[in-house]
Amino acid sequence: MGKIEVGIIGATGMVGQNYINLLNNHPWFEVVFVAASPKSAGKRYCDAVSGRWYMTEDIPEGIRNLQVEDANRVENAVEKCFLIFSAVEMEKQAIVELESEYARRGVVVVSNNSAHRHTQDVPVLIPEINHHHLEIIPQQQKNHNWEQGFIVVKPNCSVQSYMTPIYALMEAGYSISNLIVTTLQAVSGAGYPGPSSLDMIDNIIPFIKGEEEKSEIEPLKILGNIVDGAIVSNDSIKISAHCNRVPVTDGHTACVSIQFSNKKPELEEIKELWRNFKSVPQELELPTAPHNPIIYHEDIDRPQPRKDRDAEKGMAVSVGRLRECNVFDYRFVGLSHNTIRGAAGGAILIAELLKARGFIL
Amino acid sequence: MGKIEVGIIGATGMVGQNYINLLNNHPWFEVVFVAASPKSAGKRYCDAVSGRWYMTEDIPEGIRNLQVEDANRVENAVEKCFLIFSAVEMEKQAIVELESEYARRGVVVVSNNSAHRHTQDVPVLIPEINHHHLEIIPQQQKNHNWEQGFIVVKPNCSVQSYMTPIYALMEAGYSISNLIVTTLQAVSGAGYPGPSSLDMIDNIIPFIKGEEEKSEIEPLKILGNIVDGAIVSNDSIKISAHCNRVPVTDGHTACVSIQFSNKKPELEEIKELWRNFKSVPQELELPTAPHNPIIYHEDIDRPQPRKDRDAEKGMAVSVGRLRECNVFDYRFVGLSHNTIRGAAGGAILIAELLKARGFIL
Amino acid sequence: MGKIEVGIIGATGMVGQNYINLLNNHPWFEVVFVAASPKSAGKRYCDAVSGRWYMTEDIPEGIRNLQVEDANRVENAVEKCFLIFSAVEMEKQAIVELESEYARRGVVVVSNNSAHRHTQDVPVLIPEINHHHLEIIPQQQKNHNWEQGFIVVKPNCSVQSYMTPIYALMEAGYSISNLIVTTLQAVSGAGYPGPSSLDMIDNIIPFIKGEEEKSEIEPLKILGNIVDGAIVSNDSIKISAHCNRVPVTDGHTACVSIQFSNKKPELEEIKELWRNFKSVPQELELPTAPHNPIIYHEDIDRPQPRKDRDAEKGMAVSVGRLRECNVFDYRFVGLSHNTIRGAAGGAILIAELLKARGFIL
Amino acid sequence: MGKIEVGIIGATGMVGQNYINLLNNHPWFEVVFVAASPKSAGKRYCDAVSGRWYMTEDIPEGIRNLQVEDANRVENAVEKCFLIFSAVEMEKQAIVELESEYARRGVVVVSNNSAHRHTQDVPVLIPEINHHHLEIIPQQQKNHNWEQGFIVVKPNCSVQSYMTPIYALMEAGYSISNLIVTTLQAVSGAGYPGPSSLDMIDNIIPFIKGEEEKSEIEPLKILGNIVDGAIVSNDSIKISAHCNRVPVTDGHTACVSIQFSNKKPELEEIKELWRNFKSVPQELELPTAPHNPIIYHEDIDRPQPRKDRDAEKGMAVSVGRLRECNVFDYRFVGLSHNTIRGAAGGAILIAELLKARGFIL
Repeated sequence: MGKIEVGIIGATGMVGQNYINLLNNHPWFEVVFVAASPKSAGKRYCDAVSGRWYMTEDIPEGIRNLQVEDANRVENAVEKCFLIFSAVEMEKQAIVELESEYARRGVVVVSNNSAHRHTQDVPVLIPEINHHHLEIIPQQQKNHNWEQGFIVVKPNCSVQSYMTPIYALMEAGYSISNLIVTTLQAVSGAGYPGPSSLDMIDNIIPFIKGEEEKSEIEPLKILGNIVDGAIVSNDSIKISAHCNRVPVTDGHTACVSIQFSNKKPELEEIKELWRNFKSVPQELELPTAPHNPIIYHEDIDRPQPRKDRDAEKGMAVSVGRLRECNVFDYRFVGLSHNTIRGAAGGAILIAELLKARGFIL
Repeated sequence: MGKIEVGIIGATGMVGQNYINLLNNHPWFEVVFVAASPKSAGKRYCDAVSGRWYMTEDIPEGIRNLQVEDANRVENAVEKCFLIFSAVEMEKQAIVELESEYARRGVVVVSNNSAHRHTQDVPVLIPEINHHHLEIIPQQQKNHNWEQGFIVVKPNCSVQSYMTPIYALMEAGYSISNLIVTTLQAVSGAGYPGPSSLDMIDNIIPFIKGEEEKSEIEPLKILGNIVDGAIVSNDSIKISAHCNRVPVTDGHTACVSIQFSNKKPELEEIKELWRNFKSVPQELELPTAPHNPIIYHEDIDRPQPRKDRDAEKGMAVSVGRLRECNVFDYRFVGLSHNTIRGAAGGAILIAELLKARGFIL
Repeated sequence: MGKIEVGIIGATGMVGQNYINLLNNHPWFEVVFVAASPKSAGKRYCDAVSGRWYMTEDIPEGIRNLQVEDANRVENAVEKCFLIFSAVEMEKQAIVELESEYARRGVVVVSNNSAHRHTQDVPVLIPEINHHHLEIIPQQQKNHNWEQGFIVVKPNCSVQSYMTPIYALMEAGYSISNLIVTTLQAVSGAGYPGPSSLDMIDNIIPFIKGEEEKSEIEPLKILGNIVDGAIVSNDSIKISAHCNRVPVTDGHTACVSIQFSNKKPELEEIKELWRNFKSVPQELELPTAPHNPIIYHEDIDRPQPRKDRDAEKGMAVSVGRLRECNVFDYRFVGLSHNTIRGAAGGAILIAELLKARGFIL
Repeated sequence: MGKIEVGIIGATGMVGQNYINLLNNHPWFEVVFVAASPKSAGKRYCDAVSGRWYMTEDIPEGIRNLQVEDANRVENAVEKCFLIFSAVEMEKQAIVELESEYARRGVVVVSNNSAHRHTQDVPVLIPEINHHHLEIIPQQQKNHNWEQGFIVVKPNCSVQSYMTPIYALMEAGYSISNLIVTTLQAVSGAGYPGPSSLDMIDNIIPFIKGEEEKSEIEPLKILGNIVDGAIVSNDSIKISAHCNRVPVTDGHTACVSIQFSNKKPELEEIKELWRNFKSVPQELELPTAPHNPIIYHEDIDRPQPRKDRDAEKGMAVSVGRLRECNVFDYRFVGLSHNTIRGAAGGAILIAELLKARGFIL
């Protein structure tokens, strides 16, 4: 049985390169289509990324000589692939329209972009958390009169460092009222070239454009419910995020203070809930799913980006330093790999879930 | 009129070196006495620090050839100086006893150590905030039957990055109930050699031993009152601190969320209060006092350690990003130079306050 | 007596900002004219650099509200200033023409650019070395029929880290046949934003475009002689340079192996020659001249960029580790501040030399 | 058939940890014995390294509970293993005696230490270069009256970044007279904790104790011949090394200028020789041998430590920027992983060669 043919739009940028890297030798998917901006179109992939291939591994052999297509010419993809991973960098409205056009033409779109994250019938997925939001897809198709295609998106990279641990507690019946989160985010989150080395040597930057807003809004949708054919955000939780850029290549760290609504778990119970947490991706044994989505460290100075970002091939969330908080109930540190779990890896896991659940054939 | 003769104990360590550096050409004080551990005793100062002089400036001429004394032999200091700056590194109890012995022999002790911070009759001073705690000194002398000597201490370096801005609001009549603080602290805070470069390249460490406890307790004493001859901590504020080590040489950054008890100021009013804040060190025109103790930055990505740590010769607190908080009332970023304002510079300012207020003659 | 009115073209870039910073309160020069590209023209200086003012110090008061002119409209400068410092970033030929046009209109041009470094009648100056090359200026003016204006340039930043020590030996009568130099260059040498932080965290880049060629050719012109109205390069020395970019903000380090043509000095004699070296800028007591142009360190692990780049306000060359070489005669390490001595500071010293020698009135 | 039982002395240090990491699941060797200093002796391995396990991967299951032995009690090893990898950190003479004692008792010693590198009958091995030096082993055993044990050592880590490329040219018949090498070495080369982060943020250190001497002497022995039962160094080559410490975790870079004795190859021929280079470890298909010992990069800014150190699992030398030299004949940049090829990995490759050649049974 052959693999499912997939494409990548925005294939020459850093996230696109990550897709190519992570999809190399994927058991279910095969990249047959790469598209980018008109100025790369027509070139061989290896020429289009010459001098700006950022991955440590070489370009996979099967991709080197693929001809780069123009991502705007949707008809090219339609013939070749059932699903595209979207990593285009354009104005928000242009992305909304382009991704919708792919869906209209029958292509499943799994997107890295924030453009569709606020669209009510588009699920923002962390497969371990809101897999049930896939149920909105038939409604989405009906709303637009799309037959085969549809759009799903992954959330902002930084929320991945703490949302799964938070969800594991909610799933166990503990409701949460307040989160105050301070992130220390890696430079790769800004793409390449991203922050200047002059700003990142002997320095930190206490600001990342748009990041705090995303961190405060997207989790509420992820934790929301489908009501009357739309995803309605959970409005019982309030989140305050402070986002910093630090001189780390990969791996976003989050310092989280958490307050429960009424009853709160014991400290050791939380650790148990985290260590034992499994969800649908683990049950379905999806190829990219981490065996342990949450890894708790007892060492007092962990997790650390360089030591823990690659846990479970970059797909696990590493957690540590759970302790009581003087102001709220508890505090902890979470960490995830922002370009794997937080970007291309997270999107591939979504695509695997779609296949396992029969949304792609 | 001659300068006041002062000494430094623990003079060969990194904080001791900072004292020597900052006291060079001081208008009021002259370093005539340097002491350290027995193994340095008897050497010329320049020999004792050979290969581990960490300052950018050279050893001042007047200090190079001073003979290092044994800090434990208190009698050596008594003859030579009225005041010593203490930066010794020893067990807590040994420091308590050594500093007390200096005071007993009539020497004023201004200490960098945490050993005496919890002693009820020893003030923990940030001169802009709790200058009135000097009033405890006669009581302290009386308690111990000391005639001329006494002990004052400076607080932990990291609290300096946000306590003055917090105090400026309290002074204006706004009471605060909760603070959640996440710090990104420079490696120099750990002395030399401090963290290994293997832990600080492409990494952060989300833990600093003892730092969170200090950050949560010391501010309450600083904001406390003298009641019945003892400093009683302010118990109306709760502080939760999460302390991280980041690859920055100097400058501690703090991300602060703040909740007021009842009424809260307008956002612009807070900025005004900060910009206009002056206190006793400014009124007394103390030599080391910053003209503007709080510098507010409107640029959205400031303060930053490398760009702002040296403001007002390292003695100002730089603040920025004041904005509303989804969970508490407001959020902001504070920054101060940890080895200047947060250590030797802060202690020198205390000594200047002591002199201006007549506690040293 | 008033100061000489000077201008800066390319005033909004990083080198331009350095000029403004270093010329603040200069005893001889006053910046009255700032120019940049057409898109900045018409704005107040503070608005033109908003969000990209890279200096640690604030914009000087007298400059904040200066209106930025279009650098291409030479007539604007002619009325206002006698001398301009050129830091424009354009195509080489465009710079050649623009700087020539300024000179033709009577303005003295001191340039940071490489555009004119190979022009035979334009001196490439390190004031401590080839001050006598100023004698070419009347010839340059005659060649072009310029009456008052002329052009002088400073060399590439990296050669400053070792050329003065090399020259000090030549001046003492030792001729040199071969130099093999490996540089470890700071990121500020590439301007802002310069290298991506993704390339400079946990990494070095063993290549800097065009840098090795400059490092091999420019010193020969600096060490050359005026023959028949043209500067003829010294062809008796061969230089091989390998240039690396390292994660350092400021300060270029050079590891140098040196071979003498015939007789060679003793090791201690070299140190003496360096320690005692003074030249015309010192004799003339130029305001920006370092008292000691060469500082020799006996500590075995010096010079280091962060500890030594600011020596003599960034104008000295720090040298250390002089020792015998197994292949050539000697080896040493040199270091200088690339944005001060190697750029704006070096150019200001040239302008001071021009004034002291009567080339500007 | 069972695996060969091996031990590690100095097993708790950083190099020892690397051995454990790289020998995990090795097809030929099994670690059954770990020894360290008396203060670790008696503890479980996981307890002995608690808080200082530096590897990214966890301690292998089979090692966690091994009891750490006292490395000085040689009898413990004799019973358990045929070969020990030595990574002890002691005084040179103590290491010489300890390693000799292991050999005397019949244990094969493959050492990371420099202690025995100058012993005339002990080969310093880079398996791709001087595999024939194994022929000295019978002589070594005879000299000491050892029956079964013997000692072989690996050279200093930094020479690995350029010696194989140099040898590939010599093997093709080109003799070399002079090498001038400047290295940019990673901090892990100094072990843990190694350089302070205060010295490695925004800085480089142009000195590494003892490193230049090793870099100048060891290659001559590696390239030497066995004469009258002793390894005689090649005295026709002169090497000058300048060694710098740079803020890179792993991967030593070397900038090399090379002069041939008489005839010199064409530039393209050198690249061909490097690309095609294979040696005994490749022919024997040793498990740890890189398929391509030398990888030549045409990209002008490669090799770079973070991108290239892991090539061929850290066992290849990456080379680039081959170009003519103004002073010598050619220049190039070499890079290798200092803790893999340059330390534990290189030693394991030696052990594999010993087994393949019948020196261990």
